[in-house]
Amino acid sequence: MNECKVIIMGFGAVGQGVANAISLKKDMIKQEHNVEVKVVAAADSSSSAICADGLDEQLLVSVKNDNGSLASYPEYGSDVCGIDVLDSVEYDCLIEATPTNIEDGEPALSLTLKAFEEGKDVVTSNKGHLALFFKDVVSAAEKNNVQFRYEATVGGAMPIINFVKDTLSSCKISSIEGILNGTTNYILSRMTSEGSSYKDILHESQELGIAETDPTQDVEGIDAACKTVILANSLLGIDATYSDVDVEGISNITSQAIELAKKDGYLIKLIAEVSPDNLKVSPRLVKQGSSYDVNGTLNMATVHTDLAGDVTVVGLGAGSLETASAMLTDLISILKNKY
Amino acid sequence: MNECKVIIMGFGAVGQGVANAISLKKDMIKQEHNVEVKVVAAADSSSSAICADGLDEQLLVSVKNDNGSLASYPEYGSDVCGIDVLDSVEYDCLIEATPTNIEDGEPALSLTLKAFEEGKDVVTSNKGHLALFFKDVVSAAEKNNVQFRYEATVGGAMPIINFVKDTLSSCKISSIEGILNGTTNYILSRMTSEGSSYKDILHESQELGIAETDPTQDVEGIDAACKTVILANSLLGIDATYSDVDVEGISNITSQAIELAKKDGYLIKLIAEVSPDNLKVSPRLVKQGSSYDVNGTLNMATVHTDLAGDVTVVGLGAGSLETASAMLTDLISILKNKY
Repeated sequence: MNECKVIIMGFGAVGQGVANAISLKKDMIKQEHNVEVKVVAAADSSSSAICADGLDEQLLVSVKNDNGSLASYPEYGSDVCGIDVLDSVEYDCLIEATPTNIEDGEPALSLTLKAFEEGKDVVTSNKGHLALFFKDVVSAAEKNNVQFRYEATVGGAMPIINFVKDTLSSCKISSIEGILNGTTNYILSRMTSEGSSYKDILHESQELGIAETDPTQDVEGIDAACKTVILANSLLGIDATYSDVDVEGISNITSQAIELAKKDGYLIKLIAEVSPDNLKVSPRLVKQGSSYDVNGTLNMATVHTDLAGDVTVVGLGAGSLETASAMLTDLISILKNKY
Repeated sequence: MNECKVIIMGFGAVGQGVANAISLKKDMIKQEHNVEVKVVAAADSSSSAICADGLDEQLLVSVKNDNGSLASYPEYGSDVCGIDVLDSVEYDCLIEATPTNIEDGEPALSLTLKAFEEGKDVVTSNKGHLALFFKDVVSAAEKNNVQFRYEATVGGAMPIINFVKDTLSSCKISSIEGILNGTTNYILSRMTSEGSSYKDILHESQELGIAETDPTQDVEGIDAACKTVILANSLLGIDATYSDVDVEGISNITSQAIELAKKDGYLIKLIAEVSPDNLKVSPRLVKQGSSYDVNGTLNMATVHTDLAGDVTVVGLGAGSLETASAMLTDLISILKNKY
């Protein structure tokens, strides 16, 4: 039996989802891939739990939820946090789930580069460092001859990066269009079905936990723009960064505009366009009943290929366990390549 | 530079598509994967062209189209055919694209097993031997420690088998539903949009080459049932064979029934259901605007997972180059694992 020791950095919704997913699937991974996955450390922004023999994934989640901190994890809780966690215990793979930071990509950038330099594989859900420094980060992984996977950065549980790389590898991708942000799709869907105002639906979405207290990254298109950059680099080989995307959000969309569109058989959706000529996120009219007509927090993407024609994928764009499932699939791919 | 010598068995639409796809993509495969792919033999049911140094893919296609036979391929044309082709030249991978035979799975079965026994990898688009003897065929590949890939058997250019295995590997699949036959979806779509009779649209589809002269395999649901068996075995681990599928085709669907459904916001689609309790192909009412509302020769499948929720994929269910693209992706996966 091989062993894979992982560190989970970031212990919000996604980090906890990863702990839950590992807890649910570690027996399957043992049976099918002959690898024992152990969480040797988990850390949030100010605390951690660290144990070289492996922590209890469920206990990590309940300690964090009960106390708001990992410091009170029995015996192994501590105040060690940030990059120091990577020096505190032996590990094989960093699972990087810290919050996206579009200013400087930190702490994801430093964590990821340090892991690479130490010869560790990395799975990330973080869009910041990739939207800002995609080429540098990917080059660093190649230089250090480690595996780096980032399916969860785009589309949540909707496979798109591995989908194109693994299942459309014979094809050249000319462009991709899609709905890449679940929160805005949820808001627009409810504005459409209920005729309510942007403000009212945003407020309700915040109460339901679908929109964040500060909804800027979602509603202003920043999140979708980060994903646009990641798809452009990873699937179309375009050397682009965040500032290359033309971004417009949904905060100016009125219920009147949606009503007018509906009358003519259209919907308003926040569409991301990824092509060599165009990196753009903007509200657009799409036909009712078209492949863009997906509701709620669903994401979708249509990939235009040379040999296979158009291929469309639809899946849940957010959710703790859903996003974690993409990270766990990435981890399994790493294990398959390694052992 | 590594070398991969392939034999293409079956030189109808799919086999010719593979030759075209290799011609289009061999430079890409050289550059990105450092492998030179050479077609060392291609054969239809009564003739072949065989050359250990490699044949010209475009010339194969034009000779076949001009003469209806490969025997007149300059210098290397011959009457060798069937299983003897595999003994006539050294090769690494069999690309098996003979017509599906649901009676006994031949000639695909014998060709595939012989290739396995000789330690060769196989890529197939053939549903017959898999629908009848899935477990035996897959076990034979494992026993001989060779790679066996069959993405093109289901969904044409719509990725589904590799999609689930590679990009949803963290998830348990509880069931799959989908539209798995392009010809019937084309006929039903046109009956819906034009109000015409089944017979008229079938006739026009035959003239357009979308339906075969003998349309039985498509319209009676046999083709979709084969695909149902392949998904059941490969993705849900169900030990099923063709006779386990409850099959009903579309030949009794009237334009009146479609009209009635439309009035209430429904469509009639030929739906395949794959679950541990149910292997079924039958015409069903689906909601307009739902994920099943895809037109023409499109295929779709919704995969129900434990961690990632529902994931849906849509793509072209048929077409020479489209289906060939799935086979070439399979070949590239084999090369990636090998070198």
